Amino acid sequence: MGMTMTQKILAAHAGLESVVAGQLIEARLDLVLGNDVTTPVAVKEFKKIGVDQVFDKAKVAIVPDHFTPNKDIKAAEQCKFIREFARDTEIENYFEVGEMGIEHALIPEKGLVVPGDVVIGADSHTCTYGALGAFSTGIGSTDMAAGMATGKAWFKVPSALKFVLKGKLQKWVSGKDVILHIIGMIGVDGALYKSMEFVGDGIKNLSMDDRFTMANMAIEAGAKNGIFPVDEKTLEYVKAHSTKEYTIYEADEDAEYDAVYEIDLSTIRPTVAFPHLPENTRTIDEVGDVKIDQVVIGSCTNGRMEDLRIAASILRGKKVAKGVRVIVFPGTQNIYLQALEEGLVKDFVEAGAVFSTPTCGPCLGGHMGILAKGERAIATTNRNFVGRMGHPESEVYLASPAVAAASALTGKITNPEEIA
Amino acid sequence: MGMTMTQKILAAHAGLESVVAGQLIEARLDLVLGNDVTTPVAVKEFKKIGVDQVFDKAKVAIVPDHFTPNKDIKAAEQCKFIREFARDTEIENYFEVGEMGIEHALIPEKGLVVPGDVVIGADSHTCTYGALGAFSTGIGSTDMAAGMATGKAWFKVPSALKFVLKGKLQKWVSGKDVILHIIGMIGVDGALYKSMEFVGDGIKNLSMDDRFTMANMAIEAGAKNGIFPVDEKTLEYVKAHSTKEYTIYEADEDAEYDAVYEIDLSTIRPTVAFPHLPENTRTIDEVGDVKIDQVVIGSCTNGRMEDLRIAASILRGKKVAKGVRVIVFPGTQNIYLQALEEGLVKDFVEAGAVFSTPTCGPCLGGHMGILAKGERAIATTNRNFVGRMGHPESEVYLASPAVAAASALTGKITNPEEIA
Repeated sequence: MGMTMTQKILAAHAGLESVVAGQLIEARLDLVLGNDVTTPVAVKEFKKIGVDQVFDKAKVAIVPDHFTPNKDIKAAEQCKFIREFARDTEIENYFEVGEMGIEHALIPEKGLVVPGDVVIGADSHTCTYGALGAFSTGIGSTDMAAGMATGKAWFKVPSALKFVLKGKLQKWVSGKDVILHIIGMIGVDGALYKSMEFVGDGIKNLSMDDRFTMANMAIEAGAKNGIFPVDEKTLEYVKAHSTKEYTIYEADEDAEYDAVYEIDLSTIRPTVAFPHLPENTRTIDEVGDVKIDQVVIGSCTNGRMEDLRIAASILRGKKVAKGVRVIVFPGTQNIYLQALEEGLVKDFVEAGAVFSTPTCGPCLGGHMGILAKGERAIATTNRNFVGRMGHPESEVYLASPAVAAASALTGKITNPEEIA
Repeated sequence: MGMTMTQKILAAHAGLESVVAGQLIEARLDLVLGNDVTTPVAVKEFKKIGVDQVFDKAKVAIVPDHFTPNKDIKAAEQCKFIREFARDTEIENYFEVGEMGIEHALIPEKGLVVPGDVVIGADSHTCTYGALGAFSTGIGSTDMAAGMATGKAWFKVPSALKFVLKGKLQKWVSGKDVILHIIGMIGVDGALYKSMEFVGDGIKNLSMDDRFTMANMAIEAGAKNGIFPVDEKTLEYVKAHSTKEYTIYEADEDAEYDAVYEIDLSTIRPTVAFPHLPENTRTIDEVGDVKIDQVVIGSCTNGRMEDLRIAASILRGKKVAKGVRVIVFPGTQNIYLQALEEGLVKDFVEAGAVFSTPTCGPCLGGHMGILAKGERAIATTNRNFVGRMGHPESEVYLASPAVAAASALTGKITNPEEIA
């Protein structure tokens, strides 16, 4: 029986000729990742294991991005703790404020993940790197500790859903709309513990940034991972960012899938997930009149160059609606610099948005844009659970940068087609 | 008996021909100011008074700058409360995230204070506007409430200290060094409830930004206010920013002062205030070896264009020391834009600093750069009290932007003369 792309990567990393869905395997890890929230717990567990060095100083990455620059004393203490751990264990990929970015934007940019890798990260959205044809998944802090110590992790081999993409997205529609459409279709547990494998002719029409956004939100359908085949765009990205060796895996012709979905990209509409689940999607044509107090553009889901470019193109030369707070979070310091270079930062600030330094910010209710009772935000982030961005009685609407930027101009959820 | 400059302004606003130190007077207010921390309390008091409108919609300003973009749910609720109050009372000068800045950088920029004004603000550093030849002082939230309701406030007329400035500052020395030198000389209660009146030929050699910085820190010597005479530089600033009518007051020749200090600006050295009081000053030649973890450049004291220019000129083309977090806070969105225009933002980010959106940030232990136990920051802010920037066992060293930037490059407190 053939294997899916994910299964082939896992088999190779387990030293096995083949694996089947449901099989328990121990796989070699190419990268173990943590942030300022999860790493402190992992380090405490790591110290209990009784080793004093990580398995490979080049294969552990720690990115303090959630509550940095330090939100409060607790955040400061957590960052200090992991900074000292990184120093003591000589971890090569510890990224300080000023060098850093949002982990899932930073790690690919730094070339730390390449096709064929197996990556675990103590953060749900570690699945982002599936865009590069890697197997990449979020784990808990204890698994991070074991991974740092041994360079290995146990996995139950996932079965898979196949998404056959064809056609091309229309203007103002992006990867965010596709993944929201899919989550709306299959539900937040529609891919529970499965791989979401994206294939088809339509993929060549998706940019790397579209793919990062889509893989990033695989977890929002409950998936173990999301993964894209490696094509010319992938290799171009990898060669621009990494010197690591990579391996291209492809699903077998006779791989088995639990289900196959065909999606014509040209039919996808700008899509918004209403509170309080990412599956509560409506097309922009169905949203009705939803007033908003805040707009958040950025995050590990949509804080990359294309996201900033499209949002800036909508805001350029215009003013955000009176009373609406618009906060933009670039993914990394390099993205910040590139946005400077292209004049996008000026576009945002002149329009009346604020352009923050990279941080996860309000996405997870952290800081820099928390909502009060009864307030509503439209956000390019990934989760709209109850209280996710602040008060339990606040609301988050998930959307693309284009929809978020258009909404910033009107103060209500708005179709970018009507603005631009 | 003659009056000081401050006394003349107060007399005019009390409708009196003359006043003497110690006299209780009720003065007309030209501006009543509050922020997101103090205004909620003031609004609750205001509502108890039983009026439903402020005395003048154009003469109240509310600037949410301390914990914005909203740090947490409490901050979000406070901002929502004052936003609704500003809306209900139709206050013209409410500044939302995206329009705003740090209050004491924003208010002069918006032209809301001009020479001869009497201003109260529910924030200690309201004394900043003395740079414009206004009487301006920090008050409590209850006084803010009464001020909003009546347009008047009671004051005890202050006596004064006279600082006669002569000569010209040397390169790398700025207003911050002068005011730290003065506070070191007279102590943190050296001007308790008095006016600090700056006069002399040396003033023409001080930029408006130098003067804002010096007036801003008058409160750190315990002063009721700090005040500068109005000269060509003042009028140039006022004409560029305001259409309000102004009145120039001058101290009488025979005004009485509790003390007179002569200061030769050319002898002032870069000066650093060691923990935990602004009076604990040492010249840069006396600081010894003080390692730092964080550098903060910005705040209502030093987040203006000249501050950013000098810091950027030191960091340009270089890299901040490994492991040192360098966080830059421009005073306002306009300063942000001007810094963009001049390429300074690029200088900072390329050097490995982060360039934040305007906020008070860590200055008062708010957010965006809080210190852990045992950590040290050098900061261009105004207070280095125990725990001011985070953990009670952290330390803050106050300095100029030049010293802070030079220190960013080395990781220890550094004389900019040695770097540049």
